[in-house]
Amino acid sequence: MNATSEHLERFYSVIPAGGIGSRLWPLSRADAPKFLHDLTGSGQTLLRDTWDRLVPLSGEQRVMVVTGRAHRAAVERQLPELTDPNVVLESEPKDSSAAIGLAAAILLRREPDVIIGSFAADHVIKDKRGFRRSVIEAAAVAEAGYIATIGITPAEPAIGFGYIHCRGSLDVSGAPSALLVDSFVEKPDLETAQGYLASGNYLWNAGMFISRADVLLEQLGQSKPELLAGLNELADAWDTPRRGAVVDKVWPGLEKIAIDYTVAEPAAKAGRLAVIPGAFDWDDVGDFASIGKLHSGGRKKDLAILGENARVLADSSSGVVISQTGRLISLIGVTDIVVVDTADALLVTTTANAQRVKSVVDALKLSGRNDVL
Amino acid sequence: MNATSEHLERFYSVIPAGGIGSRLWPLSRADAPKFLHDLTGSGQTLLRDTWDRLVPLSGEQRVMVVTGRAHRAAVERQLPELTDPNVVLESEPKDSSAAIGLAAAILLRREPDVIIGSFAADHVIKDKRGFRRSVIEAAAVAEAGYIATIGITPAEPAIGFGYIHCRGSLDVSGAPSALLVDSFVEKPDLETAQGYLASGNYLWNAGMFISRADVLLEQLGQSKPELLAGLNELADAWDTPRRGAVVDKVWPGLEKIAIDYTVAEPAAKAGRLAVIPGAFDWDDVGDFASIGKLHSGGRKKDLAILGENARVLADSSSGVVISQTGRLISLIGVTDIVVVDTADALLVTTTANAQRVKSVVDALKLSGRNDVL
Repeated sequence: MNATSEHLERFYSVIPAGGIGSRLWPLSRADAPKFLHDLTGSGQTLLRDTWDRLVPLSGEQRVMVVTGRAHRAAVERQLPELTDPNVVLESEPKDSSAAIGLAAAILLRREPDVIIGSFAADHVIKDKRGFRRSVIEAAAVAEAGYIATIGITPAEPAIGFGYIHCRGSLDVSGAPSALLVDSFVEKPDLETAQGYLASGNYLWNAGMFISRADVLLEQLGQSKPELLAGLNELADAWDTPRRGAVVDKVWPGLEKIAIDYTVAEPAAKAGRLAVIPGAFDWDDVGDFASIGKLHSGGRKKDLAILGENARVLADSSSGVVISQTGRLISLIGVTDIVVVDTADALLVTTTANAQRVKSVVDALKLSGRNDVL
Repeated sequence: MNATSEHLERFYSVIPAGGIGSRLWPLSRADAPKFLHDLTGSGQTLLRDTWDRLVPLSGEQRVMVVTGRAHRAAVERQLPELTDPNVVLESEPKDSSAAIGLAAAILLRREPDVIIGSFAADHVIKDKRGFRRSVIEAAAVAEAGYIATIGITPAEPAIGFGYIHCRGSLDVSGAPSALLVDSFVEKPDLETAQGYLASGNYLWNAGMFISRADVLLEQLGQSKPELLAGLNELADAWDTPRRGAVVDKVWPGLEKIAIDYTVAEPAAKAGRLAVIPGAFDWDDVGDFASIGKLHSGGRKKDLAILGENARVLADSSSGVVISQTGRLISLIGVTDIVVVDTADALLVTTTANAQRVKSVVDALKLSGRNDVL
């Protein structure tokens, strides 16, 4: 591994672009998922931001996107450089084990020694250089046979993220900051999060995985042999005329499960999971409160306004306004408010209630109001 | 005056239907003023409610409506029984002295001993019988040569209404509860309002005036002789072919001033203003907080929802939602909220800030955004 070369050798970026982002309803929808929105004010979508972050690492010929059939056109509009062999379409969502596992299996057949790095399409990182440094270390660890992740050094006792519990350091050339992972822990309560922060042994789980494709698939096969068999059948047919028929046969039966459970946690238990503590900024933009935070730089009194044609008249108000309609939005004396104004649905809540937005989506699903989902 | 007859003798109802209701923006607009909305959930507009309240007193042939030219069609749709001689159109708004004064002057020429009762088009009274009892007493007082008003017995130390300070009782046959008015006082602060309530000598000023037309005009002439001269010129021409020409000549120059200043306050000073303490419910529905109160019956936790096609999904929320668009409105964890959702403008505020809505309208006027006013 030569970290000074223009691109990382053997490295292939994989972008699973699948999640809708239910906590960002009614902005995010089945037909307008989170990764197709500009949530940072950068002027481009989160997917495009992700692409721009990865191309310097792997080159634009070596970025694979796994997405739903329904999003193909939108993804290709965002990424005109994306070539056909780098597009993997899911006929229905099957969660991250299938998405990343299939990418790994396809790439393994094309390049037996490939190292893949999987990065969500809808996260925000501003410090590209810091990100790049961490990925280079992670790739070195992956080359040594570990499954690597990049954990984010906590900036605060966040309760909206899962954490990675680290133990001793790892002696791998080219990865001076690498640590061994002890375990993954779920989103904590505030007191627990404060303890994590104080201990210095916990990092935020940003869901980034860097691994040799063969190592990742082997670990997946130990947890879920049937799932691996299905992915191998798909990958064997992928670059042949049989692809369509095999997808139709195999894809619907694949188990729907997150890669955290099939690869990351078992690998941690087996002592094969390494983590690079990333010192860069990172946010999964999980809810409207984090959008507000991204835009205000942490200042409480600000009002973040998103939307190209937003017309907002605010008096003594703070929070987040997202406007998709061009209607005049007037706020008077509402603090930490969240207003999301779309053509067919309006959401009014507060940043403190931002995590509860998903419950609305669940209620709408239950009542069959799919027209607004 | 025979209070047991079917209708009050000599009595003519006048409904000035002029105010837009700026504190109810963006529901109330120049082209959709407050009186053309159903704010009570009665299924009909406030104007129609007002008509229905007055017809039993004066008969439907004896209700005059003073409104803007722009609202003629809408008013006639609401009141198909309204006959041409009972429609007085203003070419531009000139406030209540001109509106009520012109009605009085026109009616005086048709019936020299007419008693007029003027009642806003956009107030809410549910207890029609109580209202009727008070008007009958007021008409008796008016017959005796006083200018009469009906004050509302305060239910709480409201700070959104002006008050009437009463002194000794008045000995007029047919009006056992009549009092003499000492003075009118402006909207008080809370402490002052509490004092008013405790004293028992203060009533809410509901802007209802009952008077012989000649007495009212004489009082107006003492305060504003030029205004009276203009109204007389208009009234002389009203029922002749010269009406249009005289309106074009005289109306634009009339002074724009509320009848409180030209008639009510001077009459109180002169000891000619009587008040009937009304024991019925009354609300001027001055802002969104009062709409909420009307619908919740005073219970704090309720969410009032107005709008024929309203689709509201509320979780741990209270306040007022007014929906004109049929869009799905979702509220999460917002208390005492006000959401007004119209085709081109959205308002989000709280009931505590309801009085500040007018400042938005003022800001929009200043910035020339008349498209949403």
